[in-house]
Formats: sequence, structure tokens, C-alpha cells
Amino acid sequence: MKTLADIGEDALIELLVKNLKLDHSVIAGPGDDCAVVLAPQKGQHLLLKTDTVVEGVHFTPETPGRWIGRKAMSRVISDFAAMAAKPCHALITLIAPPQTPVKRVLDVYVGLRAVAEEFGVNLVGGETSRGDQLIITVSLTGTAAAKSWVARNRARAGDDLYVTGQLGGSIRGKHLRFKPRLAEAHWLAAHWPVRAMMDISDGLAKDLPRLARSCGLGFEVAMDQLPCTRGSSSQQAWSDGEDYELLLAVSPRKSAQACEQWRQAFPKVPLTHIGRLVNSKDAKQALPGGWEHFKS
Amino acid sequence: MKTLADIGEDALIELLVKNLKLDHSVIAGPGDDCAVVLAPQKGQHLLLKTDTVVEGVHFTPETPGRWIGRKAMSRVISDFAAMAAKPCHALITLIAPPQTPVKRVLDVYVGLRAVAEEFGVNLVGGETSRGDQLIITVSLTGTAAAKSWVARNRARAGDDLYVTGQLGGSIRGKHLRFKPRLAEAHWLAAHWPVRAMMDISDGLAKDLPRLARSCGLGFEVAMDQLPCTRGSSSQQAWSDGEDYELLLAVSPRKSAQACEQWRQAFPKVPLTHIGRLVNSKDAKQALPGGWEHFKS
Repeated sequence: MKTLADIGEDALIELLVKNLKLDHSVIAGPGDDCAVVLAPQKGQHLLLKTDTVVEGVHFTPETPGRWIGRKAMSRVISDFAAMAAKPCHALITLIAPPQTPVKRVLDVYVGLRAVAEEFGVNLVGGETSRGDQLIITVSLTGTAAAKSWVARNRARAGDDLYVTGQLGGSIRGKHLRFKPRLAEAHWLAAHWPVRAMMDISDGLAKDLPRLARSCGLGFEVAMDQLPCTRGSSSQQAWSDGEDYELLLAVSPRKSAQACEQWRQAFPKVPLTHIGRLVNSKDAKQALPGGWEHFKS
Repeated sequence: MKTLADIGEDALIELLVKNLKLDHSVIAGPGDDCAVVLAPQKGQHLLLKTDTVVEGVHFTPETPGRWIGRKAMSRVISDFAAMAAKPCHALITLIAPPQTPVKRVLDVYVGLRAVAEEFGVNLVGGETSRGDQLIITVSLTGTAAAKSWVARNRARAGDDLYVTGQLGGSIRGKHLRFKPRLAEAHWLAAHWPVRAMMDISDGLAKDLPRLARSCGLGFEVAMDQLPCTRGSSSQQAWSDGEDYELLLAVSPRKSAQACEQWRQAFPKVPLTHIGRLVNSKDAKQALPGGWEHFKS
């Protein structure tokens, strides 16, 4: 089986960018020092995010390449969902050992490209280097109307907390196969007075305190109301990482009516009230758990 | 000495983004799911590039952290120089083993921030993960007037080839300490009919054929006219990597006059005529050499 060392960098890149579908916004795609794209339209902001998946951390040597690619692209699109923004242009950084089979890298790109196409993202460039582990980093730019994107830090005490989908046990497969909640996020931002939103990547136990802290608030969560994935406990729903569901804080006034509309728009995706934001001094002690990148 | 495993991800990020200088173009910097920045002005294009430095490939475990950071940021700014564009907003992806001393990572950021400030780049966000090697990836966005950026593929047969600075032997230190030729590139694009430009990162032996190929042309180079770094041979100037000088193709008509103006503008930086682009069928066989990422 041919390896990266057999074919070299230029031939690899040629394979990776072959038949790339690019829309009219791309003026110069792969092949120059930088990619060149149309700037966002008047009244829009530009959004930027990078995210990385590392062999042995986010996937294993046994994970099929296309699932690695799907995960790498889906994770960063999930961040654009969290801001209710539109992802547009991606750069891929591929780090791989020279003995990596070419087929494995091509499989990763099948996954990257499938998700990119599904969500209207153009792959406009990237970078390759050798390294000891397979690592894929996706840098994504996108747009949002200047007045419509949703920050993480603008919730108020008393706001209701909701999560989409079910939490916990993603290690059994969802961490590879999840679909970013982009349509759901746009719907929520359009129909609800969503005051703060983020995606749950390190587990509710890590991410909810982050959201509350960035608003200068504390929180209360009803552990017995957490929507658990089948086979997962409340504790797992609380502390497992990689759910890639949305966590949002909503003005409590209109939430009942909007919940009914949600059920009609997304009948298969639960939207669950899990607690509320409170003033810091009223907050109960946070429960332990969640994913920590450097601590073991 | 404290390690990343001792302090964990949130405390690390807090240290890395402390006292970050951000200009008015940054609406939401580090701390949200995405960074939010002002879109380029009307008539401008958006440019995107990512680049990565890997321990054991682009630097060694003995390389001081701030030189790693300087190199990581300078490399990607060099790509914006190659397009005669203005770099604006950077995202940093840091991959490191948990046992990495916190001080080493902070030193890397000293270097990243120093170069970013020097070139007016805002560090607006990033991502951290554990991994087996220290790896820093910088994703940079920038702008250029829609009509002023310089591509790699628009040269014509007969165009003169020039390089800035001196080539070869960068492994002795320049690969860490080079300064991206941003001012020089903007000057060249403003004063010369530059038809194609790129930065020399993998060595002239690799990069010149890439430029010629993307124009559908061949090239002729006078090996004895290559500007060699003191102590380097022509062969090294031809095939060593990591010069980060500019390679440009210029309409032959105005080059003599412009060379004189160049000497006045940049008296310490040589600009050397090294050859010309020719029709492919007239080209001599390329010489071997240059840096190859995956072949050993």
C-alpha cells in the first residue's frame, strides 16, 4: 500500500484538492500562498474559528478515516452553530507520519469534504507537514449579520437554560457521527430571545460553568431533568464530553410558546429545560466532571 | 516547574490571552465559540492561510520557546507578503504534551505576540489539545484591495525572475530569526509590474518549479548568479529550504529603473535577477533539491 513517503507532498496535495467543489465566493482556491475569497457583504461580521482532532485523543488508530474527517469538520461547524452564524471557507492542516497510507489520508478527506458540502463550506486551502501522530486542524471563517449572532456572555440572572438533543455516552459513537446543530441554532436565534449560546464539547459539567462565568453568573441545574442518551446516567449526561449539543440561555417570558413551535420544527430533537442562571452568590457548588485536555 | 497537567486548560488559556492587545476591528476576541471581527471594507478581498510548525521538523526540543513562536507567526505572515496583502486576525492552535512546562508555552506566546504586534496582527482566538509533540498552527486572515493582490500564476514567458535577500544555509539560524518581507512585498507590488510572486519556503529548487508550473511555463536560472548567504554555496542557495525570501516574476521592460529605486528604498536587502520564465518546451531540466515534507 502506498504511503505519504512514496508519493511526496505535491502529489498528495494534488490528490486532496482534485475535483474540489467551490462556489462563486472563491476567487483563488488551493495553489497560491493564500486563498482569496469574497469579503462578507455590508452589514455582516466575519467569524473565525479553528479546531483540531488528534490521534489518541479525539480518535484512535482504528477509527475509519472518513469518520475522522467528518468529526474534524463537524466540530468546527458546531462552533458556528453556537453563534448562529453561517460557515463559509475552510483551511485544512494535515499532520501525518510519512508511513501513513495515502488511502487513509484520502479517506479523511472524503469525510471532510462530505460534511463541508452538506453545510455549504468551501475547502479553499491548507497545509501539510509530517509529525508523529495523525492530526487534522480545520480553520473556518464564516459570516453573520452584525446584529444577529449570539454571544456566550449576554445572559441575565433568571434566564432559563435549555439543551438540545440528549447528553452522555458519546464515546459509544456519537462523538464521531454527530451532526452539528446548525439549522437548529438558526431557528432558535430567529424564534427565541436567545441571550447566550454555546456548543457542549467538553461536557455540561465544564461548559455550563464557562457560560455562567462569562456572564458573571452562577447556575442551578436539575440533575434529574437532564436529557440522557439511552443507556447513560444523569451523571454521564452531566460529565461526559463531546455531545456537540447546544446549551442556551433564554429569557423566561416566551419559552413555553416557543417550545411548542420547536416541537413542530424539529420533532425528532428534544429541547429540554435543565435549569436557570442565578446571581453568583445564590449558586450552589458546581458538580465535578467534564473533559479536561491537559489534566489526566 | 509547573506543567500543563498541573494547571489545566482553562487556566492555561487565561494566561495566554492576558493583556492581549486588540484593535477596534475585533468585536469578540478569545472566550466565545468563534472570534468576531469587522469584515473587510468594500472593494477588498479576504485572504486566508494556515501554517504549522512541528517539534522535530521545524524546530527542536532545544529551540527557545519565543523563537518557535516568532517562527510560527512569521511563516504565515510571509505568505501574506507573497500576495502583497495585509495580515489582520490570527487564531492559534497549540498542541502539547501534558508534561510540557507552562513556561515553555508562555515563551512560545511571547514570540507569537511580539511578531503579531510588529505586523499589526490581532490574536483573536485559538484552540488547545494534548498531543505527543509540541505543534503550533497559526491561521491568519487578511485583506487586499480586490485589484492589488499578486497571484502566483499570472506570469508570462520572458518575464524576469528576481529574489529578495540571500539564499541558503538558513538552518544555521535564519529559519528562526527571519523577518517576513511584508514591507518589501508591498513596495514591489506598488512600484513594479509584478506578475507573479511567492515566498520561498521549501527552497528555490522546489518553489520555482511550482511557480513556473502554475503559470504553465518553464524556467532558466543562472546558478552562478544566485545570491548566496555568506558561507553557503550556490547549490545550497538553490536547494536549502526555509529562506522565506520573495521570488517574483516581473515584466522585463521596467526592471532596470525599478532596481535603482529598490536600492534606495531597501539599501540593506539585495534584489537579484536570477533568470527568467520560458515556454515549457524551451526549459532545461530542473535541478534536484529542495525540502520535501514526507519523503526522507
